[in-house]
Amino acid sequence: MELVSQNQCFGGTQSVYRHASEVCGGEMTFGLYLPPLARSRPVPLLWYLSGLTCTHENAMTKAGLQRHASEHGLAVVFPDTSPRGEGVADDQAYDLGQGAGFYVNATQKPWARHYRMYDYIVSELPALLLESQPLKGIHGITGHSMGGHGALTIAFRNPAQFRSVSAFAPIVNPTRSGWGRKQFSAYLGDDEAHWANYDACLLLAEHGWHGDILIDQGATDQFLELIRPEAMAQLMAERRQPGILRMQAGYDHSYFFVASFGEDHVRWHAERLHAA
Amino acid sequence: MELVSQNQCFGGTQSVYRHASEVCGGEMTFGLYLPPLARSRPVPLLWYLSGLTCTHENAMTKAGLQRHASEHGLAVVFPDTSPRGEGVADDQAYDLGQGAGFYVNATQKPWARHYRMYDYIVSELPALLLESQPLKGIHGITGHSMGGHGALTIAFRNPAQFRSVSAFAPIVNPTRSGWGRKQFSAYLGDDEAHWANYDACLLLAEHGWHGDILIDQGATDQFLELIRPEAMAQLMAERRQPGILRMQAGYDHSYFFVASFGEDHVRWHAERLHAA
Repeated sequence: MELVSQNQCFGGTQSVYRHASEVCGGEMTFGLYLPPLARSRPVPLLWYLSGLTCTHENAMTKAGLQRHASEHGLAVVFPDTSPRGEGVADDQAYDLGQGAGFYVNATQKPWARHYRMYDYIVSELPALLLESQPLKGIHGITGHSMGGHGALTIAFRNPAQFRSVSAFAPIVNPTRSGWGRKQFSAYLGDDEAHWANYDACLLLAEHGWHGDILIDQGATDQFLELIRPEAMAQLMAERRQPGILRMQAGYDHSYFFVASFGEDHVRWHAERLHAA
Repeated sequence: MELVSQNQCFGGTQSVYRHASEVCGGEMTFGLYLPPLARSRPVPLLWYLSGLTCTHENAMTKAGLQRHASEHGLAVVFPDTSPRGEGVADDQAYDLGQGAGFYVNATQKPWARHYRMYDYIVSELPALLLESQPLKGIHGITGHSMGGHGALTIAFRNPAQFRSVSAFAPIVNPTRSGWGRKQFSAYLGDDEAHWANYDACLLLAEHGWHGDILIDQGATDQFLELIRPEAMAQLMAERRQPGILRMQAGYDHSYFFVASFGEDHVRWHAERLHAA
């Protein structure tokens, strides 16, 4: 693991690391914020999964989460959204290939060799972090847009690993969205039965979730037709699933929206992870 | 004035505008944050001047000031750091020309035609904002690095216009720094007597300042030799100038440093501007 940069921030440390990923078959970069509390004892870890076109850097510099993580004693990891590099398959569209991994394990050519973001987030990166950083092995997960999809699906499939979950404007039902069908078809092939492993609504309907769920959604988000929050709203209500879905008046899909509600999400996770 | 973008943020509005600048002889872009309070009554305005290589956008997306401005009822304007465009003189170096206006009125060729950031910040942009936005006409000013230099020098030369001043890692003594001598020589010519109008230490020594001054400086800033905070520290102490200079252990020159202390600066200005 190679240290790329390190900056003190709100009394803690914002680092960027590069490492060889076996799962993704190449070099991966991630950001890690450690709060001041981590100097004296291991802390819980909040995963922040980013959206389409983002690298590890966008949320790290724009979402303002470090302030809250510092106050609440959480570490935050900012993974990249896909494998990258010259030998890695890509597409000209912004929503397929590099920057658009969709947190799946691809099974189809030419994607299958590198696009294994699901295993990277669930297995490889946690192991690397736990062996090298002052972390307790207690995880929460959140994310924005495609990353909100990642957070919900990864939590729902790994309830023993993740104690808390939240999301900002998550793509909740990708098997019925233009942000999903195109990518799942490319990465996973035409058998839609396989897609259900990566659809938050389908997973929640099948497995439920042991805790409560916090979702914030901008009511004037320019991508509402692709995000389809109504699918999750209906499902949570039908299932009597504990949780909060907040339709936030006047907010769009930007980091200005994420930053505005970041404190609530970090506190949400801190309350659940410190009690764990 | 043309609206380029608008995003709700912490209950207020982050806008970007483009306008024809007579002073700079071309199109200029700036960001403006209006807090929720501005919907019901005019609010004071905090000027945030950015550093080398920045546009209007860097601080607007990375410094996290909107949260504090929302809470404290201040508008914040994020001007660009220089004129820009094809017809505007430039230099290959990052610290001269576009992105490096140094908040002076250039007198030398080829800069004099467009590089009039001092007049732009002191006169043209305030007039435009006051006539178009819900503002009270009460101003505070802050900035980072080259922008901290801009904030201090502009405040010290215009004490009736600016009621409060602060800075993050300001270039306090540019006439004795590699960040200053090169640029002043290019923009202002070789007569160093003229340079004194744009040197915070020289201006404070000559004119004093009617209020108190807040300066934050990273103790492990990678540019300390160019910033020379010791010149301002000595001068403020010698003059018994009311103020606070905080040497912040472990912090560098980045936006992670600015973000970490942004709340203190916004509160500093809010306390002084709301009382005005």
